[in-house]
Amino acid sequence: MNPICKLLHIKYPIIQAGMVWCSGWRLASAVSNAGGLGVIGAGSMYPETLLDHIQKCRKATSKPFAVNIPLLYPNVQEIIELIIQEEVKIVFTSAGNPATWTAILKEKGIIVVHVVANTKFALKAQEAGVDAIVAEGFEAGGHNGREETTTLCLIPMIKEVVQIPVIAAGGIASGKSMLAAFALGADAVQIGSAFAIAEESSAHQAFKNKIISSSEGDTRLAMKKLVPVRLLKNEFADAIAKAEAEGADRNLLLELLGKARAKLGMFEGDMENGELEIGQVSAMLNEVKPAKQILEEIWQEFIEGVKHLSSLNFPV
Amino acid sequence: MNPICKLLHIKYPIIQAGMVWCSGWRLASAVSNAGGLGVIGAGSMYPETLLDHIQKCRKATSKPFAVNIPLLYPNVQEIIELIIQEEVKIVFTSAGNPATWTAILKEKGIIVVHVVANTKFALKAQEAGVDAIVAEGFEAGGHNGREETTTLCLIPMIKEVVQIPVIAAGGIASGKSMLAAFALGADAVQIGSAFAIAEESSAHQAFKNKIISSSEGDTRLAMKKLVPVRLLKNEFADAIAKAEAEGADRNLLLELLGKARAKLGMFEGDMENGELEIGQVSAMLNEVKPAKQILEEIWQEFIEGVKHLSSLNFPV
Repeated sequence: MNPICKLLHIKYPIIQAGMVWCSGWRLASAVSNAGGLGVIGAGSMYPETLLDHIQKCRKATSKPFAVNIPLLYPNVQEIIELIIQEEVKIVFTSAGNPATWTAILKEKGIIVVHVVANTKFALKAQEAGVDAIVAEGFEAGGHNGREETTTLCLIPMIKEVVQIPVIAAGGIASGKSMLAAFALGADAVQIGSAFAIAEESSAHQAFKNKIISSSEGDTRLAMKKLVPVRLLKNEFADAIAKAEAEGADRNLLLELLGKARAKLGMFEGDMENGELEIGQVSAMLNEVKPAKQILEEIWQEFIEGVKHLSSLNFPV
Repeated sequence: MNPICKLLHIKYPIIQAGMVWCSGWRLASAVSNAGGLGVIGAGSMYPETLLDHIQKCRKATSKPFAVNIPLLYPNVQEIIELIIQEEVKIVFTSAGNPATWTAILKEKGIIVVHVVANTKFALKAQEAGVDAIVAEGFEAGGHNGREETTTLCLIPMIKEVVQIPVIAAGGIASGKSMLAAFALGADAVQIGSAFAIAEESSAHQAFKNKIISSSEGDTRLAMKKLVPVRLLKNEFADAIAKAEAEGADRNLLLELLGKARAKLGMFEGDMENGELEIGQVSAMLNEVKPAKQILEEIWQEFIEGVKHLSSLNFPV
């Protein structure tokens, strides 16, 4: 049996990425009900909002679901306490040091998965006792690694050094790319962008439309002097790009960034002044569909891809 | 039969990338003799040097081999005339407009393959009449695309718009990554870095050693304001990175670059002042081996990977 399906008690080794302003209880429960793992993205939620989402998710699905916690965000302690109190069974941690919280969560019997972008943090996460890791490549949307290692290069590097299961992320939005991840040795995939435009995603319709109409080259890894983040190009992102080309320092970037840009763009629908986090695969996405359909189409293409590869007649 | 094997009359769908200062007649003939396609990299050769390499390659192998011509380099006209006169049967063109030379080469019965990094140029190349394209992702060494699209994202995008065979490049140095490329729909792979450290590569031993000892994050896409190029970090690359972070313009970059840096590093072995072009996969390479062994190990792992994927028991 697939080690991630076994660990998380899910049918398909497909995890919906926890995404700020996109993945609330509606998306998470839809993915879980469809046989994948739905993940509530706590990064954009106050503790009381998260509590509401956890309770609603539990009512909407009897299947396992998870909460993603970016460890560098404020309120982490409060959110961890809430997770424990609410008996959430699976936690994805990201953007921070897994050593700090993993033991506390594991002690309560919670399954912990940590998101990394390099082998150094993969090893740290394994040492901290996490049950699996998500390895996320350069093409992924949102927060990203400094090494700029792509998924194609990252997965084999990480598989070589860790013994725990590896979930591939970044650039995966189809059965073909899922199959590529498995060819590289991944045990499962985490899919963000494709679910960001799901019907059940809480992203603003204008953001979904912009993703659908975006083309190749329309995302860029920005703010490398702060925390690298992959964004859709718009007025805000262009202003950042211009400032960076001219040598802008951290302070100037922080000033340009301001506050609550992600909410402004992704949730409130300001397509020019908002921060629009999405992956390179956005160029391949062209339709809003229910999460169940997205998952099933990916799985179907994956299974067909396995058959296709097996049928090719190669000289041995 | 595999369309690239059929087109190029080779046993394995594995092409050795034409690489400046690495791929002369020794490497090209070794790869061709092993059943792949060897490619002489004309980018670092004067016409008389190229003539010598073509003649020596022909003596060293009875199998097909190719010449790679970066179309933006000086002497292109002279090199094309030489190719025709010497009856070279396969030409890979890169770094320039395929419209200018493809018809002239095709008229002489030469098979033309063009290297691209985006769908726009893939379509241009197809319209120009090339027989196949190489689609090269962000993780690749040397010259690179402005969109920064990774191989995982690029191959499906290009497969969606062209009808001719597609050869995947960038991040491929093992049977696993080759299998990932096939999962994405590629018909063959082009492998650079892994062959740059082959015994038969004309790269300086110091460069091969530096590739072997390099780690994750040791390459960087530099000089985006000129032509983006992926380099190994060293004193020169660090100076470029520093200047870029401070907003250096084209003129300053050209000044820092100076002349003949690639030769200085890759061929003459100056590891600090030279320009060292290599891909992200360099972090995974750890041994100088004969080209035949490199090719056979990749092929073996690829075949085993196909079997492994076929044996996995997935719910349908």
